[in-house]
Amino acid sequence: MIETRLLNILNFQTAVASKAARCVLAAGGRALVEFGLRRAQAGEAGLWAARASYLAGFDATSVTLAAPLFGIPVSGTMAHSFIQAHGSEAAAFEAFARGNPAGSILLLDTYDVERAAEEVARLAPRLAAQGVAVRGVRLDSGDMAAQAKRVRLILDAAGLERVKIFASGNLDEEKVRGLLAAGAPIDGFGVGTRLTTSADAPYFDCAYKLQEYEGKPRRKRSEGKATWPGRKQVWRREEEGKLSGDVVALETESAAGYPLLAPAMKGGRRLAQPTLAQSRARARAQLALLPEPLRLLEPAAPYQVAISEGIRALADRLDAERQAGARR
Amino acid sequence: MIETRLLNILNFQTAVASKAARCVLAAGGRALVEFGLRRAQAGEAGLWAARASYLAGFDATSVTLAAPLFGIPVSGTMAHSFIQAHGSEAAAFEAFARGNPAGSILLLDTYDVERAAEEVARLAPRLAAQGVAVRGVRLDSGDMAAQAKRVRLILDAAGLERVKIFASGNLDEEKVRGLLAAGAPIDGFGVGTRLTTSADAPYFDCAYKLQEYEGKPRRKRSEGKATWPGRKQVWRREEEGKLSGDVVALETESAAGYPLLAPAMKGGRRLAQPTLAQSRARARAQLALLPEPLRLLEPAAPYQVAISEGIRALADRLDAERQAGARR
Repeated sequence: MIETRLLNILNFQTAVASKAARCVLAAGGRALVEFGLRRAQAGEAGLWAARASYLAGFDATSVTLAAPLFGIPVSGTMAHSFIQAHGSEAAAFEAFARGNPAGSILLLDTYDVERAAEEVARLAPRLAAQGVAVRGVRLDSGDMAAQAKRVRLILDAAGLERVKIFASGNLDEEKVRGLLAAGAPIDGFGVGTRLTTSADAPYFDCAYKLQEYEGKPRRKRSEGKATWPGRKQVWRREEEGKLSGDVVALETESAAGYPLLAPAMKGGRRLAQPTLAQSRARARAQLALLPEPLRLLEPAAPYQVAISEGIRALADRLDAERQAGARR
Repeated sequence: MIETRLLNILNFQTAVASKAARCVLAAGGRALVEFGLRRAQAGEAGLWAARASYLAGFDATSVTLAAPLFGIPVSGTMAHSFIQAHGSEAAAFEAFARGNPAGSILLLDTYDVERAAEEVARLAPRLAAQGVAVRGVRLDSGDMAAQAKRVRLILDAAGLERVKIFASGNLDEEKVRGLLAAGAPIDGFGVGTRLTTSADAPYFDCAYKLQEYEGKPRRKRSEGKATWPGRKQVWRREEEGKLSGDVVALETESAAGYPLLAPAMKGGRRLAQPTLAQSRARARAQLALLPEPLRLLEPAAPYQVAISEGIRALADRLDAERQAGARR
């Protein structure tokens, strides 16, 4: 059960962090907020998704519990139902802004985006004079590239150049890239459902397999699922500031580059553990080391991972021993 | 937050129950066990997936906590690592069987499926004489249709006709159907990762939208995401023992068939709630009502759902009022 528990958290966070990293690459420095709790595969998954996406470079999450648990910045949202519950959109905007005087983000698409933007253009200067700041507006449906351009014009014409435009609504790294490629003046993205469920790769196909027992190497030979035996170390090379390849070797071998594996537990106790801030800094540094083809969203030639001669020889020896044992 | 919490559990259980129901349709009465905890999107999702798949007709789960929490039968598995940790497969089989004398399921594919089946053929009669039952064997990799046929022959030749063959390993409803279509003599399936993460449909795109407030109907008009306003009832028709269509109507209208919506809470209190056994019986009955095209795994013409005249008229009236308001 411990194996299972570690695996499902490891698998899931790896999946979400990978997808979040792709969003970071697509967003080119714009703000990213994790937005997907309502579609998470139950509540716990929403929490871990908030953590994994922050680790991979997101700026904030809408999961309020992530602030006390993990120290992650929380960014709230205005709901369509808040606007619908008011007699008019203008009344809803004003009530929401006064309730969040330090800087609200007003949702434009409940009825008609341009009309809502004009409402903001009338409201924001009046509220600003009373110390109530409108920090931004949010689009959530339709052709958001075209909408963002029209809204930017409306806001700028009212002297609201500093009011930012955010977008959300079934976004993922492909859609973020598409909006920016279309020249949409969008300052930040709320990425929800497809990130939080890692929708196009909802699991990471990783398993625990026994490699050594009682000091003896072990090998699983299942059809199409054979494993490499023995205790291992992974050696990584860099060239010109980019990753250039890994070698998986026996612990007793060495290879060019630097080793990746280090003990995490000893004698039943966890050894030094990085903070979330340290892991986030590391993710950022590692993303910068990715060779250019792996920074694109398209499938690229796989990263080079070689199996050492020592491992291959050990596997052959174990197979031969098993054959001999079966003949006896 | 209550909205979000209800939504993510509702969305996720709907997704998993739907996929589980497809497995039930594909398996044609054979045993189905939910197997996916290690790939679940964190631990809580594994629990809800166990519940949702049982509700939809699965027979058991490998999540041990589902027994005390939900009363779901638990079915354990033997791990490859258990076999690898022993000096020989025969020793591992015997140790595992003696540890589970009421009926073990032995895993055949760690090294060589046929050789392992021959091992079982030697072992099972000897253990049976000592009151230790081998209930079945499990395949987990490779061409399991071909393997199952060979293993069945080996077991039957040893008089082990009652030892069942189970299969697992990246299964889903399509693979279950494929194995049975290939004539594989498989008695039951462990369905894991792809069920537990609802891999091809990892979220159900359902949201809470305000339909009425302070006694007045409300309508969201977002581009491509408009909602139908007002309090509703859904009327369902049956023809010749099969579902034949639904009508979504205002609460004040009526239509042919029987109503589907009933109050679940009143005055902040939950009303009568079905037990899991009742929900499971209902799911079984509802699956039997599905028209034939919807029982196939292939995409079919969508089920007929009509919007009533009353709803359309109300939406038109609200749109006209909003236009008039905007012109004032």
